Amino acid sequence: MRIDELETPCVVIDLDRVEANLQRAQDYADKAGLRLRPHVKTHKLPRFALRQMELGAVGITCQKLGEAEAMADGGLRDIFLPYNILGAAKLDRLHALHGRVTLSVTADSAVTVAGYAARFTDAGHPLPVLVECDTGAGRCGVQDAAQVVALARQIAAAPGLVFRGLMTYPPRGGQQASDDWLAQAIAALADVGIGVDVVSSGGSPDLYKAAGLKVATEYRPGTYIYSDRMQVAFGHGMLADCALTVRTTVVSRPTATRAVLDAGSKALAADLCPSPGHGHIVEYPGAVITGLGEEHGHVDLSDCPTAPQIGEVVHVIPNHACVVSNLFDMVYLVQGGFVVAIETVTSRGRLT
Amino acid sequence: MRIDELETPCVVIDLDRVEANLQRAQDYADKAGLRLRPHVKTHKLPRFALRQMELGAVGITCQKLGEAEAMADGGLRDIFLPYNILGAAKLDRLHALHGRVTLSVTADSAVTVAGYAARFTDAGHPLPVLVECDTGAGRCGVQDAAQVVALARQIAAAPGLVFRGLMTYPPRGGQQASDDWLAQAIAALADVGIGVDVVSSGGSPDLYKAAGLKVATEYRPGTYIYSDRMQVAFGHGMLADCALTVRTTVVSRPTATRAVLDAGSKALAADLCPSPGHGHIVEYPGAVITGLGEEHGHVDLSDCPTAPQIGEVVHVIPNHACVVSNLFDMVYLVQGGFVVAIETVTSRGRLT
Repeated sequence: MRIDELETPCVVIDLDRVEANLQRAQDYADKAGLRLRPHVKTHKLPRFALRQMELGAVGITCQKLGEAEAMADGGLRDIFLPYNILGAAKLDRLHALHGRVTLSVTADSAVTVAGYAARFTDAGHPLPVLVECDTGAGRCGVQDAAQVVALARQIAAAPGLVFRGLMTYPPRGGQQASDDWLAQAIAALADVGIGVDVVSSGGSPDLYKAAGLKVATEYRPGTYIYSDRMQVAFGHGMLADCALTVRTTVVSRPTATRAVLDAGSKALAADLCPSPGHGHIVEYPGAVITGLGEEHGHVDLSDCPTAPQIGEVVHVIPNHACVVSNLFDMVYLVQGGFVVAIETVTSRGRLT
Repeated sequence: MRIDELETPCVVIDLDRVEANLQRAQDYADKAGLRLRPHVKTHKLPRFALRQMELGAVGITCQKLGEAEAMADGGLRDIFLPYNILGAAKLDRLHALHGRVTLSVTADSAVTVAGYAARFTDAGHPLPVLVECDTGAGRCGVQDAAQVVALARQIAAAPGLVFRGLMTYPPRGGQQASDDWLAQAIAALADVGIGVDVVSSGGSPDLYKAAGLKVATEYRPGTYIYSDRMQVAFGHGMLADCALTVRTTVVSRPTATRAVLDAGSKALAADLCPSPGHGHIVEYPGAVITGLGEEHGHVDLSDCPTAPQIGEVVHVIPNHACVVSNLFDMVYLVQGGFVVAIETVTSRGRLT
């Protein structure tokens, strides 16, 4: 099928750009001596996760249990789930998944560790647990080295658990300070005789600065596979690297300076980024998507030398590719003007 | 099943509130002499669309062809699709739908009308077309009465089409000026001998002011069925009227003033509203959801006299209920602490 036969709006993914983005990152990580454990939240496709493994990734990262289950179904065999898994129902599912794949998780509280310890009791097949550290991003994570030590001890004391190491999502631009924070925690752990196998950092924006990290052993980039307008605004690559676009039709031209697209917040998501508007229209770089209805994108053409006609199809690089993947049941993989595969987004909507 | 057995995050919908919201609006419309044609984009459930019809609606409104097809599959028989439908594939689908249900559409350009006229040629079963008017909201729509007349003539001249009337989405608070705009267009049409059957206005925020409208014959409220934080901020009802909440678990308490929920932008959507943050936590009204990761909601508890514990379940009224419906494959209908039905959101993800 030719790309121009696709109904709009739809997601098209440029396979050559995907391959270039993956290869570039793996080459960099290999040279830097960092193991890559890509975050699949961006693409949500076993096909691409398997390709990331082929290229040299040591495993994958999933952000929800349901996402991890879908990836296990898709043939992935080493999954890191950096999330506090709580509650009997989810712990049962986690236990089942632990029987299927090489699994590791995180905890940032005694409550979470106690839940794992109660459900996982087989010392012959313990669940590896990393301690999540808030190294400045203000998300989840323990706040200091003393808390790291306390949780590591609690994990080590549980027969069915094994302390694996530390995990953080560093603040953007604060990767180095984050690494220093982790180094202090590792020293504190060493003082009490606890060793650290894995130190996991992440974030696509600072991926190509990660060679300077001293203690990180693994890196979890996610968005780098597709990139998006936000990544470019953060200094990660160029618009020409962006592999995911939303194909959309101009359905209205109410005035000389206004166009309306058939892609709204249900197709582009409402996430903002440092660049103005709700996405970059490849064919009309001066256009600004000023607003989104659910099914309409409103475009200001004031700064465009030429303007699209009603019925014309354009391509939008979204502000945030990951949330767009979550909105579409299927995506089209394209190469040289042709659709070479249609992929169901198996992990889409896995909310629990 | 009891509500507290549900895994989080999930959407729970309070049936008593739904019923009260629907009944209140229908009663108001009946007294005002307005026909209701509810917009189903908010709930995306045939079950509720059928209930809206039972209560007295004259039909429903859908925003995408795929949504209309799903509603037709669900038993709805009178569907208004206020969208410029363009392209051979979509016109074929529209034609098929026209054979199944009582259908009407809109156009705001000669291009759109020409597409309808070429595909619909049966004078014995013409497609009703309304002209969409931009009465100040700056979305789709023709800009003045002369354009209305030109399009109405083009529609009337096509054997397989019939001119049905005018449609607008008025700017919030500008309902009355919008009505005046439409009155002028109706007068201009009368001057050339063209009558108007239907004048369709909409918008939940101003629903309870619609009795003052002079020319509108139909009204398309959408969000009123669930309401949400944005509606309340706009003056439509109270938080206690909101029927849709996201059940979510506190998965982390990194500091005394920070909590993290297992509901992020994939559950709550990133839409903003005049109230601060990304949703209202019913159990902790002083809490502010300051940020959303995809799978985490970050909560500032500084203004809360008490704080939730790790593992505690809370309910969030989202900023925008419609986009939340689009994120979940299924929703739980609840009454008196029990789940009374599990509904698949059949129109979710219908992007084309």
